Amino acid sequence: MSGAATFEGDPAPAGLTEAFWAYEAALMADDVGALDRLFAPGPETLRGDASGLLVGHDRIAAFRAARGGAPRRTITQVHVRRAADDAALVVAVTRNDAGGVGQQTQLWRRSAAGWQVAAAHVSHTPSGALDPSVWRVAGTPLVAGRPDGPLRGRSVAVKDLFAVAGHAIGAGVPSFLTGRTVEPAHAPAVQALLDAGASVVGIARTDELAYSVAGRNPHYGTPVNPAVPGGLPGGSSNGPATAVALGQADVGLATDTAGSIRVPASYQGLWGLRTTHGAVPRDGLVPLAPRYDTVGWLARDAATLLDVACVGLAGAPQRAGAGRLAVVDLWSAGLEEPVAAAFRDAVAALGPAGFDVDPVAVDVGDLGELYEAFRVTQAFEAWQQHGAWVEAHPGALGTEVAARFAAASRVTADEAAAADRAVTEACDRIEDRAAGRVLLLPSTSSPAPDAAAPSAVVEASRAATLRLTCVAGITGRPAVSAPVLTVDGAPVGLGLVGARDGDLATLALARQVAAALRPARREEATEETTSPRPERMGA
Amino acid sequence: MSGAATFEGDPAPAGLTEAFWAYEAALMADDVGALDRLFAPGPETLRGDASGLLVGHDRIAAFRAARGGAPRRTITQVHVRRAADDAALVVAVTRNDAGGVGQQTQLWRRSAAGWQVAAAHVSHTPSGALDPSVWRVAGTPLVAGRPDGPLRGRSVAVKDLFAVAGHAIGAGVPSFLTGRTVEPAHAPAVQALLDAGASVVGIARTDELAYSVAGRNPHYGTPVNPAVPGGLPGGSSNGPATAVALGQADVGLATDTAGSIRVPASYQGLWGLRTTHGAVPRDGLVPLAPRYDTVGWLARDAATLLDVACVGLAGAPQRAGAGRLAVVDLWSAGLEEPVAAAFRDAVAALGPAGFDVDPVAVDVGDLGELYEAFRVTQAFEAWQQHGAWVEAHPGALGTEVAARFAAASRVTADEAAAADRAVTEACDRIEDRAAGRVLLLPSTSSPAPDAAAPSAVVEASRAATLRLTCVAGITGRPAVSAPVLTVDGAPVGLGLVGARDGDLATLALARQVAAALRPARREEATEETTSPRPERMGA
Repeated sequence: MSGAATFEGDPAPAGLTEAFWAYEAALMADDVGALDRLFAPGPETLRGDASGLLVGHDRIAAFRAARGGAPRRTITQVHVRRAADDAALVVAVTRNDAGGVGQQTQLWRRSAAGWQVAAAHVSHTPSGALDPSVWRVAGTPLVAGRPDGPLRGRSVAVKDLFAVAGHAIGAGVPSFLTGRTVEPAHAPAVQALLDAGASVVGIARTDELAYSVAGRNPHYGTPVNPAVPGGLPGGSSNGPATAVALGQADVGLATDTAGSIRVPASYQGLWGLRTTHGAVPRDGLVPLAPRYDTVGWLARDAATLLDVACVGLAGAPQRAGAGRLAVVDLWSAGLEEPVAAAFRDAVAALGPAGFDVDPVAVDVGDLGELYEAFRVTQAFEAWQQHGAWVEAHPGALGTEVAARFAAASRVTADEAAAADRAVTEACDRIEDRAAGRVLLLPSTSSPAPDAAAPSAVVEASRAATLRLTCVAGITGRPAVSAPVLTVDGAPVGLGLVGARDGDLATLALARQVAAALRPARREEATEETTSPRPERMGA
Repeated sequence: MSGAATFEGDPAPAGLTEAFWAYEAALMADDVGALDRLFAPGPETLRGDASGLLVGHDRIAAFRAARGGAPRRTITQVHVRRAADDAALVVAVTRNDAGGVGQQTQLWRRSAAGWQVAAAHVSHTPSGALDPSVWRVAGTPLVAGRPDGPLRGRSVAVKDLFAVAGHAIGAGVPSFLTGRTVEPAHAPAVQALLDAGASVVGIARTDELAYSVAGRNPHYGTPVNPAVPGGLPGGSSNGPATAVALGQADVGLATDTAGSIRVPASYQGLWGLRTTHGAVPRDGLVPLAPRYDTVGWLARDAATLLDVACVGLAGAPQRAGAGRLAVVDLWSAGLEEPVAAAFRDAVAALGPAGFDVDPVAVDVGDLGELYEAFRVTQAFEAWQQHGAWVEAHPGALGTEVAARFAAASRVTADEAAAADRAVTEACDRIEDRAAGRVLLLPSTSSPAPDAAAPSAVVEASRAATLRLTCVAGITGRPAVSAPVLTVDGAPVGLGLVGARDGDLATLALARQVAAALRPARREEATEETTSPRPERMGA
C-alpha cells in the first residue's frame, strides 16, 4: 500500500514514501528484521515512547524483539516536512483498531543503505482507564481523607497488601484476590493517613505475596521505571513506587520485609523509609514474614516523606538524635565496582561537608552468611504464612515466586532454628559494633536491571542486593533509601540504617546528607542540560 | 541557560542551541508571544500531543493562549540530529517537577526569521492514575461480571447516573456526590450487563445532572475527542463516549433525554442507541426529565452495540421489521450547508444501494416549534426533579447548567401544560405522517464544536442540534446514531428514528445502511493514507 508523496514547489525526496509504507507494512507484520533494517544502524539512533527514550540501534532492536508486535492500526494522516534532499520528517496520525489515536514522528535520512529512520517518537492515547501494571483500582479519589490535617491535599497509593474498606486484598495474585472477601475497615496504617488529611488515590500493585524485589508481576505486568528506560521498577512495592515516580500519587504506603521499599526507591530515584520493626501497627495487612515485615512509605522528596512518617509513627516512641555516621565494611558484599565507587565518592564528600563520620568501618560480619540466615528464616515464616494456600492453589503463582515458595517448603524446623540462632547472634554482634551509629551502605547492589533480563540475572541481582538490605532486617533497625548516588546515569539509593526507634532522626539526617551531596549532582545535571552532549551524525 | 551544541564531525548549525533554550525559557515563563515567534508561521506548522495533532501556526497559537502554561519541568537529555545547515531535529527528554517524564521532538528550520520550529511532537507519562475528565473511579475491573455469557470479555463504562453497588452516584456535580450514600445494589441496567458476562471498568463522567449536550464539565474538565483534535466530546454522556472512543471500554452504558447518547456518538464517530422510551428499566438512575429519559449504549462498532442492545432489551417487546426509510423534511432545521450536503449525499446513495427510500420527505412540522415545546416540558420536569436541590446548593453548578435550571425555575404550570399539549399534538402528527417509516436525519447540526468555543457558540449549536434530536424525544421512538457522515474531515452521525419497540430492527437497518455507505468512505481513507496530501514547504 505505497503511494507517491508530492510536494508543491519541491520534488519529493525520491523513495521516501515507499520506505515509509514499507516500514508500516513491516510494523503490522511484526517483521523485526525489516524494521531493524529500516532503522539507521549505530549508537545514535533514537526511539522514544511513553516508557522512555532508547538510544542506539541495538537497544531499539532488543526492545522490538521483546515486544511481540505493535497494536493493529490505520494511518489516517501523513504530513511530510522536507529538510534536505536526503532528510525529511514524516509525521503520521494513527487510529488503533481497538480505539484511541496516536502520533508517530520520524526523521528519515538517506544514506548508501537507502532511506532509514534516524529518530522516531511514538505516542498514543492510553489504551486503558488505568495502567494495570501499576493500579488495581483508582479514583478521584478512591477514598477521601479528612478535609484538614498535616497531610491535606496529599494523595496516597496503597500497596495491595493493606485492607481498604470496601475492597478485598489482592496481594498481587488473581486467585488470592478472588478468594478474599471485601474488607470491612481500613488497616490502621491507611486510616492514620486518611485521618491526617491525605486521600487514597487507589490500590497499587505488588509482586506476588510481596515475595520478590524485582517488581515484575507475571499476572499484571511490569510497571515502568521513569528513571531508567527499560529498567525494572523494583519491588515488591512496584505499584506504589511507580505511581509516586509518575506523579500519580504523592505517597506510597508500602511494606518492607527484605527490601520491598528500599529497592524500588533505589531503582527509581525515590525516597523510601523502612520503619523500626514493630513501630507501625501491621493489623489489616497480609503478612509475608512477621519477624521482618515492616510498614513504610515512598515519596519523591524528603519533606513529604518526613511529614508522612511523623503521622505514621505518631504512636511509636522516637529517640532524638540519629547518632554518628559510620560506613558498613563491604568486604563481603561483592559489589560491582561502579556502585562501590559511587558509594565511596559520596562517603568521601561527607567529612568535608561537615558530617561526623566514624573513620572506622563497621564490620557487620560476612554479608553472605547474614543473608543466608535471613533468607532461611524468612522462607520458613513465609511458608508458615502462605504454604497451605500455595499448596491448595497449584499454578496460581508465576515461576519465580513459585520456585521461592517451593524452596521455602523444604526448610526444616531444625534448619530454621539454626538460622534463627544465627540471626540473633548477628543482630547482637551488629548492635554491639554499631551502637550509636547510623550505618551507611548502598541501598541496592546495582541500578535497576533491564526489565527484559533473564530470570538468572534478576535472581543474581536480588541475592546481591539482599546481602545489603538484610542488615536492617536482621537488626529490626529503620532504614532510609535516599536518592543520592548515580551509576551510569541511573539512580542508586544511599542507605542509612539508623538505631531502633530512630526513624525520624535517621530520616532527618538522610535529608541533610542528601542536601549536602546534591549541589554537586545538580551542577552536573545543569551542565548536561545546557550543553547537549556531542553527537556523531548517522551514516 | 543556553549553551553551545557541539557535534563531532559536523559544526553545529549556528544559533540552534540558543534558539532551543530560548524556547524552553519562554515555555517555562508561558511567554506566549515568544513561543508563537519561535514556531514557524503558516498553515503547515505542526504540533502534536496526546489530544491530537494541530496543523497550522494559528491553531497552535490558539491552543497555547488557552492552555495557561506548561507544567514545570527539567530537561534531562538533549539529542540533536542534523539534517542540513538550516534544519535539525532536537529531541529532549523532560522530567516534570510533579513527577513523570516526557519527550519533546522538534524539527527546527532556519529562515530569514531565524531558527523556528516547523514541527513538534510532545508526549508525557500520564500525570494521574486515571483521566479525571473521563473517569471518577475505575478498576481492572471495578466490578467483574459473570464468567460466561453473550457479553463475556466486554468492558463497560457506566455513566455516573446509574447505581453501582458500593459507590455513591455523583451525577457530574461534586456537592451532589458528597450528599449521596453508597448504593446497596446495581441498577437493573448495570446488573443486566454483568449477568451477561460484561465487566464494569468504571464509573464515567457526565455533564452536570445530564442537563447539557456539550460534554464539558466545569468541575472535572472536558474529555478529549479522539476523532476531532480540540473538539468537544459531546454530552451529557461524555465520559462513557470518550472511554469507548479511546478503547478504554467496549461499551458505554448511558442515558439519552434530549440527545445525550446521540450527540457524543455523532461528535466522536461512535455508534449510539437511544432506546424506545420506557423499554429499559430506569430504576437506580438519577432522572432528569422522566417523560423523555431513556437508557441506551455507545460502542465503536454496530456488532457490539447490537449484542449489548439484545441483552439490555431482553425484557422489552420488540417488533420485527424496521419499516421503510424516509427522510425528515429539514426545511425548518436551519442546518449548515456542509452538514445538509453530507446528509443529502448519503441519502442519495441509498436508493442505488438497494434501499427502499420513500421519495416523499416527512414533514414533522416546524422543528423550531417542536424544540420549544420539548425544551419547556423538559425544563419543567428537570426543575421538579432537581429544583429543590439546586436551590439548596447555591454555587454548586457551573454557569451554563445553573442558567438552564434558573430558566427552568421560571416555567409556569400553565406554560408547561401548553407545551405539554403541543408535544402531544406533535407526537400524534409525526406518528400519523411517519407511520411505518424509519426517519432519517443528521444526528447533530454540526461536527464537534471547538472545545475552546465561547458559551454562546456552544449554546447555539446545542439549540440547532436539539431541533433534530427532539423528534425522537417527542415521539418516544428509538434512535440510532450511525458514524456515516463526514464534514470537513470530522464525523457526523446519521440518525435513524425507528418505530417504537423497533429498537433492534432499526439498529440492524442502520448497520446495513452504514455497510452500504462505508466502502466509498473507506476508499477515500485509503487514498488519504497512501498518498500524503501535498505539503508546501515552510519559509
